[in-house]
Amino acid sequence: QSSVTLFGVVDAGVSYQSATSRNPVTGTTSKQSQWSLANSGYNSSRIGFRGTEDLGGGLAASFWLEAPISNDDGATGIANFNRRSTVSLSGGFGEVRLGRDYTATFWNDTVFDPFGTNGSGSSVINTVSGSTALGNTNYVRASNMVGYFLPPNLGGFYGQLQYSLNENTKTSATDTTAATSSSAGRYVGGRFGYANGPLDIALAVGQNVAVDTTTLTRKVQTINLGASYDFGPVKLFGELSNVKNKFDLAALGNSHDSYNGYLIGASMPVGAGLIRASYSTVRYNEGAVGVTGDDPRANKLAIGYVHNLSKRTALYATVARVSNRNDANYTGSLTAASTTGYGSTGVGYTGLPRSSTGYDFGIRHAF
Amino acid sequence: QSSVTLFGVVDAGVSYQSATSRNPVTGTTSKQSQWSLANSGYNSSRIGFRGTEDLGGGLAASFWLEAPISNDDGATGIANFNRRSTVSLSGGFGEVRLGRDYTATFWNDTVFDPFGTNGSGSSVINTVSGSTALGNTNYVRASNMVGYFLPPNLGGFYGQLQYSLNENTKTSATDTTAATSSSAGRYVGGRFGYANGPLDIALAVGQNVAVDTTTLTRKVQTINLGASYDFGPVKLFGELSNVKNKFDLAALGNSHDSYNGYLIGASMPVGAGLIRASYSTVRYNEGAVGVTGDDPRANKLAIGYVHNLSKRTALYATVARVSNRNDANYTGSLTAASTTGYGSTGVGYTGLPRSSTGYDFGIRHAF
Amino acid sequence: QSSVTLFGVVDAGVSYQSATSRNPVTGTTSKQSQWSLANSGYNSSRIGFRGTEDLGGGLAASFWLEAPISNDDGATGIANFNRRSTVSLSGGFGEVRLGRDYTATFWNDTVFDPFGTNGSGSSVINTVSGSTALGNTNYVRASNMVGYFLPPNLGGFYGQLQYSLNENTKTSATDTTAATSSSAGRYVGGRFGYANGPLDIALAVGQNVAVDTTTLTRKVQTINLGASYDFGPVKLFGELSNVKNKFDLAALGNSHDSYNGYLIGASMPVGAGLIRASYSTVRYNEGAVGVTGDDPRANKLAIGYVHNLSKRTALYATVARVSNRNDANYTGSLTAASTTGYGSTGVGYTGLPRSSTGYDFGIRHAF
Repeated sequence: QSSVTLFGVVDAGVSYQSATSRNPVTGTTSKQSQWSLANSGYNSSRIGFRGTEDLGGGLAASFWLEAPISNDDGATGIANFNRRSTVSLSGGFGEVRLGRDYTATFWNDTVFDPFGTNGSGSSVINTVSGSTALGNTNYVRASNMVGYFLPPNLGGFYGQLQYSLNENTKTSATDTTAATSSSAGRYVGGRFGYANGPLDIALAVGQNVAVDTTTLTRKVQTINLGASYDFGPVKLFGELSNVKNKFDLAALGNSHDSYNGYLIGASMPVGAGLIRASYSTVRYNEGAVGVTGDDPRANKLAIGYVHNLSKRTALYATVARVSNRNDANYTGSLTAASTTGYGSTGVGYTGLPRSSTGYDFGIRHAF
Repeated sequence: QSSVTLFGVVDAGVSYQSATSRNPVTGTTSKQSQWSLANSGYNSSRIGFRGTEDLGGGLAASFWLEAPISNDDGATGIANFNRRSTVSLSGGFGEVRLGRDYTATFWNDTVFDPFGTNGSGSSVINTVSGSTALGNTNYVRASNMVGYFLPPNLGGFYGQLQYSLNENTKTSATDTTAATSSSAGRYVGGRFGYANGPLDIALAVGQNVAVDTTTLTRKVQTINLGASYDFGPVKLFGELSNVKNKFDLAALGNSHDSYNGYLIGASMPVGAGLIRASYSTVRYNEGAVGVTGDDPRANKLAIGYVHNLSKRTALYATVARVSNRNDANYTGSLTAASTTGYGSTGVGYTGLPRSSTGYDFGIRHAF
Repeated sequence: QSSVTLFGVVDAGVSYQSATSRNPVTGTTSKQSQWSLANSGYNSSRIGFRGTEDLGGGLAASFWLEAPISNDDGATGIANFNRRSTVSLSGGFGEVRLGRDYTATFWNDTVFDPFGTNGSGSSVINTVSGSTALGNTNYVRASNMVGYFLPPNLGGFYGQLQYSLNENTKTSATDTTAATSSSAGRYVGGRFGYANGPLDIALAVGQNVAVDTTTLTRKVQTINLGASYDFGPVKLFGELSNVKNKFDLAALGNSHDSYNGYLIGASMPVGAGLIRASYSTVRYNEGAVGVTGDDPRANKLAIGYVHNLSKRTALYATVARVSNRNDANYTGSLTAASTTGYGSTGVGYTGLPRSSTGYDFGIRHAF
């Protein structure tokens, strides 16, 4: 069927993760570790179907259905199209895209990270923003979205706007019940950038309504700025990120947690290979469950090497280390975000771990 | 792989549904509404694999595996082949088909509805027959079926017979326990029609054993007659439908609910577009949980326009309105069937809603 | 997409299963039976994606993603890749394969069974080894495996080694808790064989750690030897199998169940058809829950015919009968393994059934 392209990535590797916790009272430490055969250490394993139809007059219709797969254990096949499932109409006006897609605000986290939010090397900006404890279900992607993308011919300028429908039922008041309405699940975001020659720079803002009940409104607001510049022998990356978790309690007033992060990174081609390195940090500034001393801070240093056997097939090795400051005092919930994490399931701690180390060795094959 | 055809539909649109309920005692009303990004407003979103092998001597083997997909949120990929999963052997004798397939009785509901049982415009015959409250799990399709289809060369006559195995375990009596046997899940149906030139007409009958225990046997019996005639500038549609829900209680005797419906519709090509309209009605005649006054009745008027950008891609708009008569007295369970329904989740009422309105605006792309 | 091969099997048929149980006290019997439309009676229904990339210098990268499908009811689409999901790098050194794959020890059970562990005719070695009561979750396949395969050019010798990572978290001791570590889920196995001309013979050994807690370690150890010899008019098959279920209870000492089986089989081409037959037996030697009299024993005789309509499409018929000896005394848990079983769900017995009979009539279509 010529109108469909079947594509995918099968990425598997051996991963070792370890983390050291410290009892804040006695000072003794405990170590947890795990060996695993993991997927998606370099690129996310996936299978997808996509296609474009030329409608004439500059118009085109296209679709994109992409499923995450877990090829290490085979447990997840094409069970869902959570990675992306969209249908688009595009032309001189740009592109209108309907369905589930990446959020505008996630793009800067992954595009300007030399490790592309995959594997042990993924930045702490990514692991903090995506942590279950922060509870931003629309961090990476959102469903039921209407998106608009600028056309590609604007002299290097690019941009997108997105609105996800929350699909909640609105009810008018009756004799006995009050009117109900909720915005929970709604994501609104935008990204605007400029890419020309060696330079790429983009600013993104977004807001997800995580909870919206009569007693609590919780919104996660993200703003980030990323850039990369390719000097030829080396390409530099940088990102600034601010994520706010805003609790507006009807009874108790407001409380805002804030997570400020930055990343600097580099990649350097060496023959058929690519050396990658990044340093990222996130400072926790938590309102309600904060600490009395200095804000806790998670730092990650990651170094890796990718050896391309072909355009489609590569071997990779990554080592990353997270160190956490002011961990002894931390009583918040974002502990799991402070480990290298990739491939590990069930590694848990009491308090913020002191440090965590991850190693990945694998193969990525694309088709 | 030349022996497989990969095909699909990605259909997404913005849908708005609203419904107005009325308190039968005080007369005050309440309105519920929902905006959504929905799929399958014009054609059902799907991905499928199918193929045919010529075995020589007029014989052919073929397979058809078709999955429903939810491209608005990506939640359902190729998780199942619930739309159809069959393997067939066909020849001069016709076709023997094994697996999960559409039921004979559903065909008339969808073939002779200008809206094809998709979106807000789908007839109330479809929404009542498919309602959870009626509980006909084999309404649209049945699993574990052996089907026989007449060959295509009978001068316009066509037909099919279907039998689904219930796969229940039968146990003979023992010293201490009685023999057990149940037909629950068994569907038997047939359809016979004639299509020649502008005319298409078909009669279908079917029975599904919904429950079969020692205390209750419940059977859903369906008979319907549909026809269409294409006058050229306009194509007319019509259907008569009777659905019986027969409760045979060993202790209390029998009780039969009956739902009588009809549909008249039309479609009219206008350039690259198609105007569609239908009026459908279902009268409830409920035995056990009936009403004292007139039978409740659900009426639906639907109007739509489809604009074909190509054979594969179309834009569509539909508006439909359901009005329910004798709603104040109705205490039965088929309330949800009486709304436009498409795209809405969680719209519920006390009693039969007065009226319900639905709008769909979307794009359908096939590959 | 030339780099991907899409392949599959759709196999469906009507199956009838019956089993007769006997009350060990009164001697009266009870019969259970079931008609079903079943899948995979001849070959396992599936859909898969696979491909190989030539990397030059004798190196190649390849992937294989294969999903089981249930085409009788459409319930399982490409929900998982449990049949196989691997990525490989191969060359003169052999092949390194990562992911979920068949175990070395399963190969002899299926390769040297004329019925290939499918349908009513599958050997009792297979049904006992795969029974839920024995609890060897890595019997057929294991996840998270690193496998190594000998290159194909060794004069007929072939072999493989496999190690599956259990992915359990290891924790060092803390002030208050002991160190934890578990090997549960780890499979280690190997197979070595020789295939040349009409002869194929292979030996396999493997061990799966089923449970590994502080109170109980349970390991399933398998060793089997299989062979086939193709005389031309007839091909003979044979297998010897020993499966040990070793309970090492910290408090109570050890207890070992042992299941000894053998199979003899034959297949004979007849025009476009193939006659298949096998006799298999497994003797139970259970330590903890054993019997006072003779060891119970399950015997199965299976006869079948496959008629090839083409290379891709075949009709098949199989009849098989299991008879169980010393059933009256048996109080162990492996009763379900002692029926023909294919296609039946919910056939249960009190004690070991006397006998069980299964019939399959179906069609297998590959693409």
